[in-house]
Amino acid sequence: MIIIMKTSAAEQERQAVIDKIRELGLECHVSVGVERTIIGVVGDDRHIHKEKLRAMGGVEDVIPVLKPYKIVARDHHPDDTVIDVKGIPVGGRTVQVIAGPCSVETSEQMNTAARMVRESGCRLMRGGAYKPRTSPYSFQGHGERGLELLRESADTQQLPVVTELMDVRTLDKFLELGVEVIQIGTRNMQNFDLLKEVGRINVPVILKRGFASTISEWLMSAEYIAAGGNHNIIFCERGVRTFETAYRNMLDVTAIPFLKKETHLPVIVDPSHAGGKAWLVPALSKAAVAAGADGLLVEMHPTPCDAWCDADQALTPDELKTLMGELGAIARAIGRDI
Amino acid sequence: MIIIMKTSAAEQERQAVIDKIRELGLECHVSVGVERTIIGVVGDDRHIHKEKLRAMGGVEDVIPVLKPYKIVARDHHPDDTVIDVKGIPVGGRTVQVIAGPCSVETSEQMNTAARMVRESGCRLMRGGAYKPRTSPYSFQGHGERGLELLRESADTQQLPVVTELMDVRTLDKFLELGVEVIQIGTRNMQNFDLLKEVGRINVPVILKRGFASTISEWLMSAEYIAAGGNHNIIFCERGVRTFETAYRNMLDVTAIPFLKKETHLPVIVDPSHAGGKAWLVPALSKAAVAAGADGLLVEMHPTPCDAWCDADQALTPDELKTLMGELGAIARAIGRDI
Amino acid sequence: MIIIMKTSAAEQERQAVIDKIRELGLECHVSVGVERTIIGVVGDDRHIHKEKLRAMGGVEDVIPVLKPYKIVARDHHPDDTVIDVKGIPVGGRTVQVIAGPCSVETSEQMNTAARMVRESGCRLMRGGAYKPRTSPYSFQGHGERGLELLRESADTQQLPVVTELMDVRTLDKFLELGVEVIQIGTRNMQNFDLLKEVGRINVPVILKRGFASTISEWLMSAEYIAAGGNHNIIFCERGVRTFETAYRNMLDVTAIPFLKKETHLPVIVDPSHAGGKAWLVPALSKAAVAAGADGLLVEMHPTPCDAWCDADQALTPDELKTLMGELGAIARAIGRDI
Amino acid sequence: MIIIMKTSAAEQERQAVIDKIRELGLECHVSVGVERTIIGVVGDDRHIHKEKLRAMGGVEDVIPVLKPYKIVARDHHPDDTVIDVKGIPVGGRTVQVIAGPCSVETSEQMNTAARMVRESGCRLMRGGAYKPRTSPYSFQGHGERGLELLRESADTQQLPVVTELMDVRTLDKFLELGVEVIQIGTRNMQNFDLLKEVGRINVPVILKRGFASTISEWLMSAEYIAAGGNHNIIFCERGVRTFETAYRNMLDVTAIPFLKKETHLPVIVDPSHAGGKAWLVPALSKAAVAAGADGLLVEMHPTPCDAWCDADQALTPDELKTLMGELGAIARAIGRDI
Repeated sequence: MIIIMKTSAAEQERQAVIDKIRELGLECHVSVGVERTIIGVVGDDRHIHKEKLRAMGGVEDVIPVLKPYKIVARDHHPDDTVIDVKGIPVGGRTVQVIAGPCSVETSEQMNTAARMVRESGCRLMRGGAYKPRTSPYSFQGHGERGLELLRESADTQQLPVVTELMDVRTLDKFLELGVEVIQIGTRNMQNFDLLKEVGRINVPVILKRGFASTISEWLMSAEYIAAGGNHNIIFCERGVRTFETAYRNMLDVTAIPFLKKETHLPVIVDPSHAGGKAWLVPALSKAAVAAGADGLLVEMHPTPCDAWCDADQALTPDELKTLMGELGAIARAIGRDI
Repeated sequence: MIIIMKTSAAEQERQAVIDKIRELGLECHVSVGVERTIIGVVGDDRHIHKEKLRAMGGVEDVIPVLKPYKIVARDHHPDDTVIDVKGIPVGGRTVQVIAGPCSVETSEQMNTAARMVRESGCRLMRGGAYKPRTSPYSFQGHGERGLELLRESADTQQLPVVTELMDVRTLDKFLELGVEVIQIGTRNMQNFDLLKEVGRINVPVILKRGFASTISEWLMSAEYIAAGGNHNIIFCERGVRTFETAYRNMLDVTAIPFLKKETHLPVIVDPSHAGGKAWLVPALSKAAVAAGADGLLVEMHPTPCDAWCDADQALTPDELKTLMGELGAIARAIGRDI
Repeated sequence: MIIIMKTSAAEQERQAVIDKIRELGLECHVSVGVERTIIGVVGDDRHIHKEKLRAMGGVEDVIPVLKPYKIVARDHHPDDTVIDVKGIPVGGRTVQVIAGPCSVETSEQMNTAARMVRESGCRLMRGGAYKPRTSPYSFQGHGERGLELLRESADTQQLPVVTELMDVRTLDKFLELGVEVIQIGTRNMQNFDLLKEVGRINVPVILKRGFASTISEWLMSAEYIAAGGNHNIIFCERGVRTFETAYRNMLDVTAIPFLKKETHLPVIVDPSHAGGKAWLVPALSKAAVAAGADGLLVEMHPTPCDAWCDADQALTPDELKTLMGELGAIARAIGRDI
Repeated sequence: MIIIMKTSAAEQERQAVIDKIRELGLECHVSVGVERTIIGVVGDDRHIHKEKLRAMGGVEDVIPVLKPYKIVARDHHPDDTVIDVKGIPVGGRTVQVIAGPCSVETSEQMNTAARMVRESGCRLMRGGAYKPRTSPYSFQGHGERGLELLRESADTQQLPVVTELMDVRTLDKFLELGVEVIQIGTRNMQNFDLLKEVGRINVPVILKRGFASTISEWLMSAEYIAAGGNHNIIFCERGVRTFETAYRNMLDVTAIPFLKKETHLPVIVDPSHAGGKAWLVPALSKAAVAAGADGLLVEMHPTPCDAWCDADQALTPDELKTLMGELGAIARAIGRDI
């Protein structure tokens, strides 16, 4: 931590800051500059409240030097973490594509979808039983019954499932049904009580980025889960909110190499929610794999026009199959497979 | 709802859209333009999935005409709603200032704070027992014990309390202690399960705007609460996230007149979290009141330097008293009082 | 400047950085921390390229401590600067409102507008002869003829004029006609050749904030003008671009107190372009004055419905008169006048 | 154009809007809905001021249906445009990589750079003689002498040059030296006088996206150039400004497929300015090509640590060579070459 004193700071203000730091059990180096004095704090100062120091007389700014995340940081864990989902590795050489419908609708729709997912070459299936919807008047998902339908359909094809948890009170049902990967949605990235709960179990978690969250906040949310003991975390970039209105969100492709440098955990991408349109999914998917993503989370529906939500962003089964072929070529071009 | 067909749309694609709309029990007007055909849907189409229509062949765009919110809209409720909080009106002629520390620390701190709030002329007290913190390693609030300390200190001055609810599982404790106003924080504005729960009770709710949520999404989150039966909702603007890094958030002062036009419910402002610095609070508070805010939510701490969180944004008791005087002058200048 | 070395930085990498700094004629303090080494540079390092140091082996980050702006900074000029525009002070106790139409249309429109500006109590007149329009097919302004019409109409009421300069090649015409205040528009805030040209004359300049520029960049653009010798600079906040689509721009009211702290120069606000709607102008104007703005730049048109551009954001003459009365009350409430 | 009337609009307000439209020589269809009336305008209404209609009594909103750009739109020009730059095609099957240093420094640096560009397999060379710098105290480029050095060094390797034009007054020098591609920088995307000037010549123009400009505004800026007669326009995405501070800009990879759908003109990407760090360039370049970009604009410097600007974002010659190999594999994977 570096403390920058104001040009106008008095001698005793500077001394008060130094005394405060020593009182907290740390040492400091003082550099008296021409215009400003800088106080460098030596030692692990992550537990100190920067705001308290900022509130002291004569202090202009307090700049942290140590990163606030530890367990998820690559600094202390240089090798890539590969997460095992029922024998399917996420985070290694193989790019994993998770596909399925936005929401669980009917048994027939789900069974068809599961078959299509399998046939396209994907190894995991997604489907939403609890749906976070902007409007209280929109379809909110089938809930428990939806979870069961997802389970049954995925089991017909031996596919592990990925589905979203919105409420701590439904976690027991997720565990009972053996959900293989729990998804934390973009609106819950900073629902800290929910993060703490999934931190107490050992089921892999896909942590979507908040739609306007910084990479640093995202890493800290993962740290919440990790601090509870669950280190099976998969980051999922899904586009962020900007000034641009031509598409739903802006896929932050830079987040992929940046995260891969900062953390040892796998990073996947959701091109469907990023672009918000089915016709954008192939280009975004190829960009994500080329940039180093460890996997994708793609919406596919047996008949998109009949989908109960996000009908305009789901791929058809044929489009998914074609995309898998194209992604294979990209993956091989960068020394990976799919 | 208006459906714009692509220049290249075929006759049968247009007919398919018209048939779909009629199948949904609505009528349509078709305008054949030089380059594009436009289909206007007549009737209440709020329940129709725009995405399904967007996914149909030949459709370029679907534009809603009716607003998606109803109960909270001023359209159907032209008069201002005044919410009664234990005899204190929020939303009428008087501007209400809610003050208190960011977090509940000790009994002594809270009792002093309560006295200072009362002496400054404020009529409601705030204080956080459950704290949403970016880092799992930061102080998370005293929880239940904090709620009790807040209750006790506020009672010594007959002040109703405002405090944040983060988890559905603690709502019973809030009700047991008679919390007068429940605050939903910025990170939970789209925690839909939490919104549904506070929609089922009849305690007033302060709904903070998500730090990157549009006004339209905010109104829809209020609609979630209202749809459950609780119409005692107070909107709280607290600054939004932008590209500017000079201050924590950007106070969206335009949201005040805009919301007052769109909804009949009260609108207050949190200048402390918006600016993130105590020295910015007076200017932002005056701007908010001048723009028509019905109240403020201000951080005050007996000794800010010792605060356990957000130490650099709390006013001192003296600063709060001075501010109350200045706000009184502004309020009178626009025909209100404080 | 502070240089933070990577955890993995080698001894010789550290030494190379220290040698480089000494080679540049500056001294440094080295703090060896538990995880990282920090090198503090002592002396005026504004001329050093941070990027060069960032590109050196072992460097994690380079953090500037000194502010990059000097002439416009309050640090070296603690008193407020009051700019004299033909006897009218901008930046002192009196809040100045500059009003007039978006674009110069006809002689009759301008003469009527000038009379209305004068009658409403405003002391300066605005009007656009050169218009920056998003589309090449929109009305681009009357150019030279427009400047002349503005000059003539303002002279009938002895009003100094404010008008926008877009192209260095028209500056001579501005000087010939004695334009009292030259406006640099939002899209030209970083048109550095244009800034250099207005830096060479001594006519007051209103420098609008770029619609997505940080305060720091804005101050640097003012420094461009000041570095040329022209210190008569007035900052004008006009709203910034965010994710919100409910209104054209988001007025950054926090910029007012922030700038007043950073610079000694006057700060005004354009509520018309910020909100983009006439009905929002009164609330935004009152907020700006309450927050400490030294003036306003407001669009008024004799008959808004007939305006050739931005018809929906101009006030009528009556609305302007009413607003001036309300602003007077706010100004007096904070110890100023209008 | 669709005009939505307010719920409260009176009969005569509706009639006034209809009369206005007919007066403008267009026809309309009126749909009387349950809550609102909608007026659809039939005919080419691009020349009508939406704001004037918005300012009329009873009007709630005016929504354009026709796109405001014509010459650059794919609607009227379905085939891809391939721009010929001295025999090198931009926009066809081959992905073109333009490389070179950020700024022209010395003759030796430029000759070495030109050789490295040629050896890496790139076919065009970039270099900045006029530099847009945030600070007036930073190196502003060598100007005319820089242009000449660029010309000389590129000629030694028969490479066409790409360089930035900032000021209309230097255009003659660009033409005299036969600059093959003129670059319009991000801060000048809406410098309309500059756009008009490059619209009058027939030299290819790279139009960089404004750092906070929408795709629609970008297309309109291209339309300014095209409207003058110069249709040789190349779009260059270079990252946009968001709330994220971990990297300089956020590369908007979605803009690539989106633009390719909207316009027939080539689209390239500048990964160097997007990420702002050399180590991010390979991942971003691969993502851009995978998403369908027609080329890249990459910074390379013989010895980055000695660069006079942006030292931390230039690739070394070896890094460029390696990248070219990787990009070749990606290009082939999607059926293109490099």
